Amino acid sequence: MDDVKIIEIKKSVFADNDEDADKLRKELKGKGVYLLNLMSSPGAGKTTTLIGTLKRIQDQVRVAVMEADIDSDVDAVKIQKATGIPTIQLHTGGMCHLDAEMTRQGLDNVALADVDLVILENVGNLVCPAEFDTGAVRNAMILSVPEGDDKPLKYPLMFSVCDLVLVNKVDVMPYFDFDLDKCREYVRMRNPKARIIPICAKTGEGLDDFADWLLAEVKSWKQD
Amino acid sequence: MDDVKIIEIKKSVFADNDEDADKLRKELKGKGVYLLNLMSSPGAGKTTTLIGTLKRIQDQVRVAVMEADIDSDVDAVKIQKATGIPTIQLHTGGMCHLDAEMTRQGLDNVALADVDLVILENVGNLVCPAEFDTGAVRNAMILSVPEGDDKPLKYPLMFSVCDLVLVNKVDVMPYFDFDLDKCREYVRMRNPKARIIPICAKTGEGLDDFADWLLAEVKSWKQD
Repeated sequence: MDDVKIIEIKKSVFADNDEDADKLRKELKGKGVYLLNLMSSPGAGKTTTLIGTLKRIQDQVRVAVMEADIDSDVDAVKIQKATGIPTIQLHTGGMCHLDAEMTRQGLDNVALADVDLVILENVGNLVCPAEFDTGAVRNAMILSVPEGDDKPLKYPLMFSVCDLVLVNKVDVMPYFDFDLDKCREYVRMRNPKARIIPICAKTGEGLDDFADWLLAEVKSWKQD
Repeated sequence: MDDVKIIEIKKSVFADNDEDADKLRKELKGKGVYLLNLMSSPGAGKTTTLIGTLKRIQDQVRVAVMEADIDSDVDAVKIQKATGIPTIQLHTGGMCHLDAEMTRQGLDNVALADVDLVILENVGNLVCPAEFDTGAVRNAMILSVPEGDDKPLKYPLMFSVCDLVLVNKVDVMPYFDFDLDKCREYVRMRNPKARIIPICAKTGEGLDDFADWLLAEVKSWKQD
């Protein structure tokens, strides 16, 4: 079960990524598949958060996971081992982000007829992934406490394009100068409508809220 | 003293960045100026590390700092306030990295005749900055403990191009699954000659070692 499929993603040739992303989103809608694009800095806890959340939802929705990394398959192996959920590894060949066409290359390797939800774990990077619409229904991101509460000031676009901000590693808040109220204020400067959920992927705190948000999203996407 | 100069960096038009970087390095050599390119993920502690280190060396070398960020000037203000060292803020206009020509645009605003050392704090990003030679004499990076010891596996190029890896936030090691020996092993897989210094920018642990390394580097660059 440790073997995960590794897909070497090729550079896109599409000129208009926004158009391509809209097309992909429409296709996924037709198939009743919800795509979530999860972004963060390196090491913010995307994989641990996913494992805890997948365990909470996998009896209620059919899920597949795509793990994008420049190299290695450690995350994909970790997720598949912990949850049994089909996980593929996308190698970006040094590229710092995924666009819609690259996401489509990944989805070509997912049995879309058998899933309701695909989660794309994007390359760990607060800059470039924010610039490219992947075709996902929603963008979510994880900001971890050790990174500091000022990140929305420094990486404005990432916080603007995300509908959900998970503030992870709240268990170590006492050891860092992180002001959650200030963080909320800075996030809202970039995106007044963003939902903010404090979580601790390690202890499971807040993951029920993220799971509920995700289940409601998938339900509404399939019904609309 | 809180006012820092903000430079809006324009996109480069140079076709061959490597050539341009070599040219810049040669010019700096001629002027006896050492340029260090400091990279890391967002929130790994570049600014706090710099402040602690600058305080240790500012009586021995003449330093200037260039802070690159997509937006805001919080870091430049922080450094100038804490150390009195001339610091300029480079705004990259959404760009995820600096190349040699963009670095040169920053250096045009530094009084090079009056400094021995310029430290460039690159955009917080483990991917793109590694791909572009800035013209610096050396690349250094900070990996912080909360990010995890597996980062050299996932971001190979960054670790390959860095001569020095500072492992920061070692004070919170007990709260994270971070194996320093494993980290050393992974770093050396990418770059067998990399120097690794564990530090805690908050308490000052290890900063003497970083300061000594930097002073020796500047001395050797000016003498060679």
